[in-house]
Amino acid sequence: MTELELAGLKPEHFLWEVKDRIATVRLNRPDRKNPLTFDSYAELRDTFRKLVYATDVDVVVFASNGGNFCSGGDVHDIIGPLVGMDMKQLLAFTRMTGDLVKAMIGCGKPIISAVDGICVGAGAIIAMASDLRIATAEAKCAFLFTRVGLAGCDMGACAMLPRIIGQGRAAELLYTGRVMNAEEGAAWGFWNALHGAESLEAEAQKLATRIAAGPTFAHGITKTQLNQEWNMGLEQAIEAEAQAQAICMQTRDFERAYHAFVAKEKPVFQGD
Amino acid sequence: MTELELAGLKPEHFLWEVKDRIATVRLNRPDRKNPLTFDSYAELRDTFRKLVYATDVDVVVFASNGGNFCSGGDVHDIIGPLVGMDMKQLLAFTRMTGDLVKAMIGCGKPIISAVDGICVGAGAIIAMASDLRIATAEAKCAFLFTRVGLAGCDMGACAMLPRIIGQGRAAELLYTGRVMNAEEGAAWGFWNALHGAESLEAEAQKLATRIAAGPTFAHGITKTQLNQEWNMGLEQAIEAEAQAQAICMQTRDFERAYHAFVAKEKPVFQGD
Amino acid sequence: MTELELAGLKPEHFLWEVKDRIATVRLNRPDRKNPLTFDSYAELRDTFRKLVYATDVDVVVFASNGGNFCSGGDVHDIIGPLVGMDMKQLLAFTRMTGDLVKAMIGCGKPIISAVDGICVGAGAIIAMASDLRIATAEAKCAFLFTRVGLAGCDMGACAMLPRIIGQGRAAELLYTGRVMNAEEGAAWGFWNALHGAESLEAEAQKLATRIAAGPTFAHGITKTQLNQEWNMGLEQAIEAEAQAQAICMQTRDFERAYHAFVAKEKPVFQGD
Repeated sequence: MTELELAGLKPEHFLWEVKDRIATVRLNRPDRKNPLTFDSYAELRDTFRKLVYATDVDVVVFASNGGNFCSGGDVHDIIGPLVGMDMKQLLAFTRMTGDLVKAMIGCGKPIISAVDGICVGAGAIIAMASDLRIATAEAKCAFLFTRVGLAGCDMGACAMLPRIIGQGRAAELLYTGRVMNAEEGAAWGFWNALHGAESLEAEAQKLATRIAAGPTFAHGITKTQLNQEWNMGLEQAIEAEAQAQAICMQTRDFERAYHAFVAKEKPVFQGD
Repeated sequence: MTELELAGLKPEHFLWEVKDRIATVRLNRPDRKNPLTFDSYAELRDTFRKLVYATDVDVVVFASNGGNFCSGGDVHDIIGPLVGMDMKQLLAFTRMTGDLVKAMIGCGKPIISAVDGICVGAGAIIAMASDLRIATAEAKCAFLFTRVGLAGCDMGACAMLPRIIGQGRAAELLYTGRVMNAEEGAAWGFWNALHGAESLEAEAQKLATRIAAGPTFAHGITKTQLNQEWNMGLEQAIEAEAQAQAICMQTRDFERAYHAFVAKEKPVFQGD
Repeated sequence: MTELELAGLKPEHFLWEVKDRIATVRLNRPDRKNPLTFDSYAELRDTFRKLVYATDVDVVVFASNGGNFCSGGDVHDIIGPLVGMDMKQLLAFTRMTGDLVKAMIGCGKPIISAVDGICVGAGAIIAMASDLRIATAEAKCAFLFTRVGLAGCDMGACAMLPRIIGQGRAAELLYTGRVMNAEEGAAWGFWNALHGAESLEAEAQKLATRIAAGPTFAHGITKTQLNQEWNMGLEQAIEAEAQAQAICMQTRDFERAYHAFVAKEKPVFQGD
């Protein structure tokens, strides 16, 4: 394994598997609905940072475990210590959690969250910061920061959630901390699709496989532009896309698609 | 009453009541479906500005009156005079109406609009500029500026409406001035929920009570960040939230929530 | 015909008709589902640029032809040549396509797309860059750039699509290139309404007529502000609207609306 290959990565604080260029990550404390700890936060952040340069991973699936996705920051392992911290320490923590989201957004590979059961607090943020989200009818998603005395602005929630489900619905979830049930989440565009619990993981892999079979260099540019254009003027975004797409037009994948079309074949993309 | 207490406020141009830290405001010309006048605009603006410093109000309910919310700027009291004004006077007026929205956005307390019947023109803007919006099946909401010869860009509508219901639906409402009926408004995320006319007010108070029982200092930060991050880059928003949430982690409400959780009790927040 | 009148325009690469101040444009290679070519791109761009100054057109309908809207950039006429181009030529092309969108956004008149059948690639972008979009149940819209080896960021798609249908749904369409069927498009706010194929064109003209009967100078300001405020701060947008609306309050159309209201008549707007 070179330092650019993540297939052999052995994280200590979550499960990790790479198969057919798809990395599957899942938290691993199913008895407690997979809370985050200081350690798993930091190791996730570092792993998503490594993904930028990974040569053996094209798509990431963030999966559930034992019927739940993630119960957020652990009350005993995280909230307890936070209560005793000074401002310097608190800011170091909130920046670390924000750095996980920045690393996910900046990792250059599409991320698909596959959410069963509990998906709350920082868990809801991980789902939100993914590019695509599928879930089961049992998925319970809550931005419950307000219920532990905090503001709804956690790890980018006030910026991202309104763009996904609209400003009014986002405000309700952030002020009340209430659960968004699966049906609401699907109707509002938070979940891209709902699947039965028994098929969730297979559907996530199928979607990942489909995306990984596409032009992965170009996917990376799509991901970059979705972030870059977040607060660009519309005309500036159009120029930025003219440049970004011109880059993609010099890839071999673009040429492969053209030749496949002419030959009435299905293109085989190779990510360059 | 100190200057920071609004319970005893006696506005001349609308109704005002503070009970259990919830202020309820309603326009009071029900025979004419509650139009706005120069005076009520100005007094509303001043009242929302005072709310920033109010120590006895945590949440505001903007309620209906006599089966209607607000019929917008009064044709005789406002539109007539505007027709005769010069540019300096016109800009003073449009800035005053914009200042009401700025005051609502900047007041630091969540605002819930409870809309029955007519909610048009500046009335639709007041609903739109609220944080949460509930309505009855009879709610008729129209951004009808175009029907009086004006543009859809009034008091922030071209900025806010697309973020709430999407760019395409907003464009339709702004170009045609047509009524968005209650069912559309709920499906599109303009209304957070629909209730029967007989229970609308009680539901608004229930929602206000629920939010007022939360960490109100943190709610103020949520409101601030929803505004601050409006046009921030995503990565900048994440850093802004790291700072904002670190502030909230030094409140006693955060500590109260933790101790309540450990004691298996419901936290009693006190807004500090 | 003066240079400001477009009624007599005789474009070579698409159909063009002006009637009752409504311009109807449609691509004209129905046997191939109306692909774009280098020539039609350039001529469309130039035509929308002329619209800014046109004195005889108030609204544009971008119509379908032969059961389809547009099949995007022609594989033989466009994609083939692109494969052989150097970066300077590629950027010139992507900028030209972006210039069409900029010209549509900047043309000062509302554009209504009326979409039947295939609406893919650059065709989907033309629909997206319109102000309003109606379609038939047979409309198949796909941002299929990924399927030809390219990124989803084409002609502003990563900026515009999330604002119309939400960030999560946009990401799915852009990463997979899959078809958004008509029902999804309506539920997600991409289509403003669905109509039967036999009535689509009449409905588009009816909507155009309704909008053209409104205050067209003010409509132009609405269109300008929807673009201008794209990435403005909320408070800056409110000030921008105060200025823009004050301008509209000095039009005769505003005065006409007031006098018509007082006289209990329907206002007859004249666009000044």
